[in-house]
Amino acid sequence: MKKNKALKALLICLLCLPVLVKGQPPRGPLAMSPRVNADKTVTFNYIAPNAKDVKLSGQFLTGAAAMTKNEQGMWSVTVGPVKPDIYPYNFVVDGVSVMDPANVDFFPNERFKGSLLDVKGDEPLIHALKDVPHGSVSYEYYPGVENTTGSLVVYTPPGYDKSQNKKYPVFYLISGTTDTEEDFFKVGRVNLILDNLIAEGKAKPMIIVMPNGNIEARVADQKGGLKPADPAGRESEEAITRAKNFANDLVTKVIPYVEKNYRTLPGAANRAIGGFSRGGGETLRTALGNMDKFAYVCTYSAYLSPKEMETEYKDVAGKPAVTNQKFKLFWVSVGSEDFLYKSTVEFLDYLKAHNVNYKSLITGGGHTWMNVKQYVAATAPLLFK
Amino acid sequence: MKKNKALKALLICLLCLPVLVKGQPPRGPLAMSPRVNADKTVTFNYIAPNAKDVKLSGQFLTGAAAMTKNEQGMWSVTVGPVKPDIYPYNFVVDGVSVMDPANVDFFPNERFKGSLLDVKGDEPLIHALKDVPHGSVSYEYYPGVENTTGSLVVYTPPGYDKSQNKKYPVFYLISGTTDTEEDFFKVGRVNLILDNLIAEGKAKPMIIVMPNGNIEARVADQKGGLKPADPAGRESEEAITRAKNFANDLVTKVIPYVEKNYRTLPGAANRAIGGFSRGGGETLRTALGNMDKFAYVCTYSAYLSPKEMETEYKDVAGKPAVTNQKFKLFWVSVGSEDFLYKSTVEFLDYLKAHNVNYKSLITGGGHTWMNVKQYVAATAPLLFK
Repeated sequence: MKKNKALKALLICLLCLPVLVKGQPPRGPLAMSPRVNADKTVTFNYIAPNAKDVKLSGQFLTGAAAMTKNEQGMWSVTVGPVKPDIYPYNFVVDGVSVMDPANVDFFPNERFKGSLLDVKGDEPLIHALKDVPHGSVSYEYYPGVENTTGSLVVYTPPGYDKSQNKKYPVFYLISGTTDTEEDFFKVGRVNLILDNLIAEGKAKPMIIVMPNGNIEARVADQKGGLKPADPAGRESEEAITRAKNFANDLVTKVIPYVEKNYRTLPGAANRAIGGFSRGGGETLRTALGNMDKFAYVCTYSAYLSPKEMETEYKDVAGKPAVTNQKFKLFWVSVGSEDFLYKSTVEFLDYLKAHNVNYKSLITGGGHTWMNVKQYVAATAPLLFK
Repeated sequence: MKKNKALKALLICLLCLPVLVKGQPPRGPLAMSPRVNADKTVTFNYIAPNAKDVKLSGQFLTGAAAMTKNEQGMWSVTVGPVKPDIYPYNFVVDGVSVMDPANVDFFPNERFKGSLLDVKGDEPLIHALKDVPHGSVSYEYYPGVENTTGSLVVYTPPGYDKSQNKKYPVFYLISGTTDTEEDFFKVGRVNLILDNLIAEGKAKPMIIVMPNGNIEARVADQKGGLKPADPAGRESEEAITRAKNFANDLVTKVIPYVEKNYRTLPGAANRAIGGFSRGGGETLRTALGNMDKFAYVCTYSAYLSPKEMETEYKDVAGKPAVTNQKFKLFWVSVGSEDFLYKSTVEFLDYLKAHNVNYKSLITGGGHTWMNVKQYVAATAPLLFK
């Protein structure tokens, strides 16, 4: 009996040491993090016996929260209650930003590495995993511009595989600067939002195609070149050129690939395009540059400047009757704390002044994926109707 | 001209500062990392002006490599030449392990966060993205044991969607301790390995189903319980119980879900099971506990002890003629530097002593995904033939 106890104590002690398997990243001990408590406060744990200062940084906080260390070298903090949603966060360990090693939910990104906190609602939120029929999310390769191979993430609605003759409309959905083609799935949970909306009869079953907005990085990666830095400014000539490269890849490569390999309904009336941040800019530049291709246009936290509208897309405001006839939906949404709020309002004012029909949704909040989820949930029911 | 230069200098300078968008993780400046050079040396870059010590740790190194800081606060090191393959790595910043923020390729894991270095071969390696027909990788939900919802990653071979009446055999493939259902896709690249083997006529077109090996974590997550620590030892009673829970979920939930929702060929002759590390243990325990279900069994860096074979699966060695008739392939592979090498050899000796047929592949190397890729490439051609 005593021997067992000693053995157990030894084992518990061993569990507190990182397990070093030759040449593998150290498999740390088991910190449970994050842990959402019954009152919706959230406890974060991070094991770092040698760290001097550990903070929690997250989009559910107004500032970083200090964490405190216990005798085993585990840093902890409990914050909240936190309003139910999905939020990016990370630890700041002696000034270094790190993902939560104990959390598998992450924020795919070219530049930073964040984890995701999922606080569930008492009533399931629109992105909750519910007991409804689920669609499927597929990773695909397609032949892209400049002989590169592009990556797509594709949502097919519940029943797609079984309904062998049924055809579907397609929503092209583009994520933001430094995001990847995975973000609308992994962070935006559009698959679950659509599963839920379709189950409630609120959205039409549709295919959602999520490309990567950064064509230049792909070309550089595959041709061995240097990956270019972000363009200086969303309205810069370089940003416009890049958006046109994206539009070219989407229209000449992605759409033909999708329409060849998926059961799609034909024509502009069955194509929507939408995007967040840079992806919203790409949405506008792609749709306004190809007005015969998309009948539904949705921008989430994005705009074009009146100057660009005048120089690049003169006919949009110049012939509003044609524009209004082509676009069944021209949607613009932004949060009042978004750093692009003012520019977006200027864009709306420009559309209004030129009698271009649009729908807008101004919410609270900033340039966040919490807002993007709301916007997707608001726009998906308006598509293909 | 001068004004432009000054502006350019200012912009370049601004690029060196983290861009702080309210409440978002800081979007760091653009470090290109990793960069594989023409001679297959690899340069790693990490921006941390305030760090005192930054090292590179990776499975292509025998020890951590010191990095040096330039005037802009970027730490760099060039190592190699590195033998072409895909390797996990991370930076160690003042003792803190971090992923490479500039690299989108990552190692999904419950416990540590690693990035992936992909050094391409002069001749494409077996996991290379080649210009061949590609299958598709889907993320799926299935109703699991204890009314939980499980996650699967499913590979369907090229042409699956177009061949509406063709049915396929299924390979169930399970990753290791602290891995998730994504690892055989994201780290093991089994989709590309199979695309390439199928294109060369070396493997039969098959569906590959990748479940998550950690049923206990899923039940805890979804029922609000505490996530249990790893069992103490691969041969412990708890490890055996957990493997049986996994087998129960696989046999009673995953297989029926897959056979209902995919076009599968029926019966044991069209089912294979394989796994790495803990997933290899689960493979053996599932297959030996359900000998009517799988005709092909593949373990990668895993074993069962003679003691467990005697107590739990007595008939396997007790009635070798039956065993040999049921299993068309009983495959065991391990690296000579694997910490499970000795136990695996004992397992092989046990099978041999009892006249149980098996095929084995002993390679160099350790308990790594570099080896797992080799093993998958070696076994896939032997399945369903």
